[in-house]
Amino acid sequence: MIIQKTENSRISTFDPNNFSFGNTFIDHMIICEYEDGKWGDVKLVPYGPLMFTPAMMGVNYGQACFEGMKAYKDKDGQVFLFRPEKNFERINKSATRLAMPEVTEEMFLDGLKALVDLDRGWIPSGEGMSLYIRPLIFATEEALKARVSNKYMFAIVATPAKSYYTEPVSVKISDHYSRAASGGVGSAKAAGNYAASFYPTQLAMDEGYEQIIWTDDATHEYFEESGTMNVFVRINDTIYTPPTSEKILDGVTRDSFIQLAKKRGIEVKVEPIPVKAVVEAQKNGTLKEVWGVGTAVVTTVFQALGYNGDKLQLPVLSDDESFAATLKNDLVNIQTNVAEDTFGWRVVVEKNVLETV
Amino acid sequence: MIIQKTENSRISTFDPNNFSFGNTFIDHMIICEYEDGKWGDVKLVPYGPLMFTPAMMGVNYGQACFEGMKAYKDKDGQVFLFRPEKNFERINKSATRLAMPEVTEEMFLDGLKALVDLDRGWIPSGEGMSLYIRPLIFATEEALKARVSNKYMFAIVATPAKSYYTEPVSVKISDHYSRAASGGVGSAKAAGNYAASFYPTQLAMDEGYEQIIWTDDATHEYFEESGTMNVFVRINDTIYTPPTSEKILDGVTRDSFIQLAKKRGIEVKVEPIPVKAVVEAQKNGTLKEVWGVGTAVVTTVFQALGYNGDKLQLPVLSDDESFAATLKNDLVNIQTNVAEDTFGWRVVVEKNVLETV
Ligand SMILES: Cc1ncc(COP(=O)(O)O)c(C=O)c1O
Ligand SMILES: Cc1ncc(COP(=O)(O)O)c(C=O)c1O
Repeated sequence: MIIQKTENSRISTFDPNNFSFGNTFIDHMIICEYEDGKWGDVKLVPYGPLMFTPAMMGVNYGQACFEGMKAYKDKDGQVFLFRPEKNFERINKSATRLAMPEVTEEMFLDGLKALVDLDRGWIPSGEGMSLYIRPLIFATEEALKARVSNKYMFAIVATPAKSYYTEPVSVKISDHYSRAASGGVGSAKAAGNYAASFYPTQLAMDEGYEQIIWTDDATHEYFEESGTMNVFVRINDTIYTPPTSEKILDGVTRDSFIQLAKKRGIEVKVEPIPVKAVVEAQKNGTLKEVWGVGTAVVTTVFQALGYNGDKLQLPVLSDDESFAATLKNDLVNIQTNVAEDTFGWRVVVEKNVLETV
Repeated sequence: MIIQKTENSRISTFDPNNFSFGNTFIDHMIICEYEDGKWGDVKLVPYGPLMFTPAMMGVNYGQACFEGMKAYKDKDGQVFLFRPEKNFERINKSATRLAMPEVTEEMFLDGLKALVDLDRGWIPSGEGMSLYIRPLIFATEEALKARVSNKYMFAIVATPAKSYYTEPVSVKISDHYSRAASGGVGSAKAAGNYAASFYPTQLAMDEGYEQIIWTDDATHEYFEESGTMNVFVRINDTIYTPPTSEKILDGVTRDSFIQLAKKRGIEVKVEPIPVKAVVEAQKNGTLKEVWGVGTAVVTTVFQALGYNGDKLQLPVLSDDESFAATLKNDLVNIQTNVAEDTFGWRVVVEKNVLETV
């Protein structure tokens, strides 16, 4: 790893009690360039602009995929990553689907640790605080030909993140727009999937919803995901989530929720969720909770489901009654080193990793 | 328009008889930036790199769309665009679907004319030669949040293009992968659509095909497009092409072919094309031609269709017998000012436009 530390740290301007998530960037970033069929040196450099022309293939043909993960600081100042190997596997799965080169462990996992260690001062601590980390790969060749690029950049950038508490939201069950095609790229964290979701989401907002529950594009009869989260439904005391597939992202939070639920003895059924079954359950009072899960906010609880022009209300549960709240709590306690990690999910970020890499 | 001409023209290094299409860039480009809810000044500047960080939303969330169009030089050195207003309309349709701001006529059409006029020396002339022009819009805000960007860049870059003659190719009728979802972004020239198509295309190549005929993602029973082209099928003396829809790009070449065919009295049916009907017609000898159309190569003729593991051969027709060749010829003659333009499709690029804008 080639290390070039900044001479102009911006950390004195960073107020952990008052910052804007998503556009406050830590001092450094990881970059690594691919050319002539291979990745070059991994570099840890000051965060900042690079030179690209508008002919860059990444913005022309969308060959770009990313990950979203977090580092957490415990009360003693120790820093942890959460299941980073899952994100490593997933970025390579995304890369393969988009005909991009896979990244190596050295680039991804060592890069991550070196960056987080060096900029550990940027990780806010306290409830809900974390560092949101964005590894990504994008095509950098300048060429106006719709074909696989010969040049890529792998980068890791990061931004401090605030409390993930969000108010319960109303979501619209999609009856026209969709997120993924059969035989498409829904299971990849492909850049283009996100742009495609913005306009339908805006339309749902115009109708008074905050998010969309994506359904299958052919019939709109089955739940797929919710916004940029995986979705869970609780009917009586059983929780349901759709199986992952080429249309559904294999979320780390989803998998963790499934394992945590099983540990608590909650029945989990990983099976297709028909919209009709959920509507039926709402009508007969057995629908207890519907929620989304993802790294960014852990859980978003839904208060109402928009279906066929109706707003189907969901019960308001106390944190004790709510499986969503209980499982979220279990997860956050592991992530932040408050509870024992019987799963081996936490990965400590050693101090001064840089001296050893 | 703000004009900053290059002081280091590279045109003396450009050999119109020996250049690489797609990565030879003309001296200038158009750029225009969007911020605070509005587009700034249109600028004609030297082609070259700009500063972007890896947190640029365009590569993270794929908010990016583009156009592909050409300028042609006739034997007297006059330069023409072809139906540029269609591309102007389409980029705004794409932008809307991706929740991006529309561009103005001044940015798009005036920008195009100014750029092509100034760099007209870069347009090779002779059969099949042209300038390939790439207008695009992409998100430039630096932010790690999956939401609509607040900043964009509109740009026009261009590369000299060579003869569009291509050998007949074998295409695989897709039975698993797909290009577009119902309720998705297939009708937009969204960057992400192209990245999504590369891997399936590579797999088809591994099986001995050059391209894919995309079919509907739910059943794979209907033709949609072919590679990055619209598709035509000729059975006996009738030609068929699928209707445009939210899954099918409304191609300028497709529309021109339809009008040219009608002018020649060829029967054109714009209706869904069942895969089975094509296979049936191949078996009973009524399938005469299948071809793709698009700006880049005008026409690619198919010699065989891969279906269910079989390679269904297509007849070899002379240029006189072939509707694809006849219509291509009609189109190219209009584009290059060899034939009278009864449709009003050609738009001349006046000399010294710059003095008037
Ligand atoms: C489309 C989509 N679904 C689900 C998720 C949740 O995945 P994870 O739990 O790994 O963050 C994400 C990412 O956060 C996503 O982008
Ligand atoms: C997916 C797709 N279909 C069809 C076409 C053909 O459109 P046009 O004739 O306007 O070039 C293109 C672009 O060239 C395309 O990208």
